[in-house]
Amino acid sequence: MSASVKHTHVWKVNGAAQSEQPDLLAREEPLEIRIVHGSADNRIEKKLAVTMRTPGHDLELALGFLFTEGIVGSYADVLNIRHCETVEKEEERDNVVKVELAPSTPFDPEKLDRNFYTSSSCGVCGKSSIESVSVACSYNIKNDTSVVTHQVILGLTNTVRKTQNVFEYTGGIHASGLFDLQGNLILSREDVGRHNALDKIIGASLFKNEVPLTQRILLVSGRTSFELVQKAARAGIPILAAVGAPSSLAVDLAIENNMTLIGFLKFNRFNVYCGRERVRSSEI
Amino acid sequence: MSASVKHTHVWKVNGAAQSEQPDLLAREEPLEIRIVHGSADNRIEKKLAVTMRTPGHDLELALGFLFTEGIVGSYADVLNIRHCETVEKEEERDNVVKVELAPSTPFDPEKLDRNFYTSSSCGVCGKSSIESVSVACSYNIKNDTSVVTHQVILGLTNTVRKTQNVFEYTGGIHASGLFDLQGNLILSREDVGRHNALDKIIGASLFKNEVPLTQRILLVSGRTSFELVQKAARAGIPILAAVGAPSSLAVDLAIENNMTLIGFLKFNRFNVYCGRERVRSSEI
Repeated sequence: MSASVKHTHVWKVNGAAQSEQPDLLAREEPLEIRIVHGSADNRIEKKLAVTMRTPGHDLELALGFLFTEGIVGSYADVLNIRHCETVEKEEERDNVVKVELAPSTPFDPEKLDRNFYTSSSCGVCGKSSIESVSVACSYNIKNDTSVVTHQVILGLTNTVRKTQNVFEYTGGIHASGLFDLQGNLILSREDVGRHNALDKIIGASLFKNEVPLTQRILLVSGRTSFELVQKAARAGIPILAAVGAPSSLAVDLAIENNMTLIGFLKFNRFNVYCGRERVRSSEI
Repeated sequence: MSASVKHTHVWKVNGAAQSEQPDLLAREEPLEIRIVHGSADNRIEKKLAVTMRTPGHDLELALGFLFTEGIVGSYADVLNIRHCETVEKEEERDNVVKVELAPSTPFDPEKLDRNFYTSSSCGVCGKSSIESVSVACSYNIKNDTSVVTHQVILGLTNTVRKTQNVFEYTGGIHASGLFDLQGNLILSREDVGRHNALDKIIGASLFKNEVPLTQRILLVSGRTSFELVQKAARAGIPILAAVGAPSSLAVDLAIENNMTLIGFLKFNRFNVYCGRERVRSSEI
C-alpha cells in the first residue's frame, strides 16, 4: 500500500477546535502508456496516452486500457508488457509502461483516437455515441442468463469496503469490485480515477484469460457515466452496480447492450434502471 | 433546467418493498469543440476535443476549456464562438461549438495536446507535471492577499446546494461555485463532469473579462485532482475548497502555486492542506 499513499500534515478545523495533525493522501502520478509494433526493420513506438493514476497494478491498468479502447482483443494480442527501463530519468521509470503488440495484432496509429465516440465514423449525439460503442462490443450480453438476489446486491458495498485499504486511510479514492453471482468478491482495485480502477479490474481479468466476464457483477464507487458503462460492456459484464447515480447516457447505453444497471446502492435500498429480469427478491 | 435532466422510470427496492416509480436523470451528451483559425486563403478548421457534458452553458464550457488548456489567454483571443449550424444532422447541432480565433492569436495545431503534462517538453513524474503547469500559469497567486474566515468557509456548501436544481432532482451531478471573500455566491454551474463544471465557471468569468479570479473562493463537489487544481491555478483562483479529499499531486500543485487548498468540507469542519495564512478563525 505504501506506493498508494503519501504522508502529509494537515491543519484540521472542527468547530472551535483547530490543530495540525498527520494525515495520508491518495497518491496520484502520471502513467504513460507506449505502444511498440512491427518488425525489426519497420518498428513503430508511439506514446498512446498519459493517465493520472494511483501507482500499483500498472500493467493491469495498461492492458485494461488498451482493451477498453479497442486496441487489443485479448492478452494474446500482446507480446510483452513491462515498465520501461530505458527512460532516462530514474524517477520517471515507474511511470511508463511499454506494451509490445504481437506481430499479428492489427495496429494503425493513424486511426487512434482517445475514445470510440471521437472516431470520424460517428457523429456527436447520444444516439451516435451509443451506436459506435455497440459496434465495438464483441460480446452479446443479451445471452447472459445471470440472476442475482436483492440480498447479494445489498451486501456488495460492505464487502468491497473491507478490502479498501487506501480509502480507509485517505477517504480519497475510487474502488471497483468484481463479484460472482453469489456475492463472493473475486478482486477489487482502488485508484484516484474511477476509469482506472475499472481498467485495472479488466486488465487483471485479461491476464487470467477470464474475459468476457459473463456471470459477473461489477460494483463501482461514485456515479455511472457513459464511459464506465462502455468499458463494462466491452468486457461483457452483465450486471453493473454503483453507489451513486447514473447519467442519462449511461442508462441508454446499458439498455442498448442488454445490461442490468443498478444505482444508489445503499445499506438497504437500490434502484434498477434496466435489465430487471436479472434481479430477484429471493432465491428461485 | 429541462435540457439538463431526462425523465425515466426506475424500479426502486427499499427493504422488502419494491415498485416502479418515475425518476429524473442528469443528462449526459457529447460536446465537440472545433477551432477555426487563419485567413480566407489559409483557413484551418480542426476538431479539438469531444467532452461528455450536461447540456447548458456550452459556450462557457468551450471558452473555459480553451483557456485552461492554454489555447487562448482571454476572450479577446476569440473572434466568434457559437453553436455550429452547418452540422448535417439536426440532432447533433446543439452538440458542436465552433470557436473562431482572432487572427492575432497564435495557433499551431501540431502542438496541440490533451493536457500540459503530455507535452513533449515534460516527463512523466509528479515533479515534471507540476513544473510544466507552473510554466503555463500567467498569474502569481503568491501576491493574492485574500483572507477568509472559518465561518465563511463552513457556509459555502449550503449556499451552493440551494442553487443546485439538477442535483436536487437527480443526485447525480457535480457542482462548482465561485464566491467572494465574504461568502457571497457569484455564480454556480452543474455538470456530470467535474472538470466541465469548473470550465463553465471559468468560461463565464472570461466572457465578463473577470479573469484572473483574484480575491475569490472556488468550491467544488467531490474530490480534488491534479487537473482541477491545474484549471483553478491557471485562472488565478487563490482559495480552492472541496467537499472531498485531495490527491497527493493536487496538494503538491497547490503548494507550488501558492494556493490555499481546503478539503473534507463538512457541516462544521474542514482540513487545510496548504496556504493556511489565508484562513482565519474570525474577522481581523
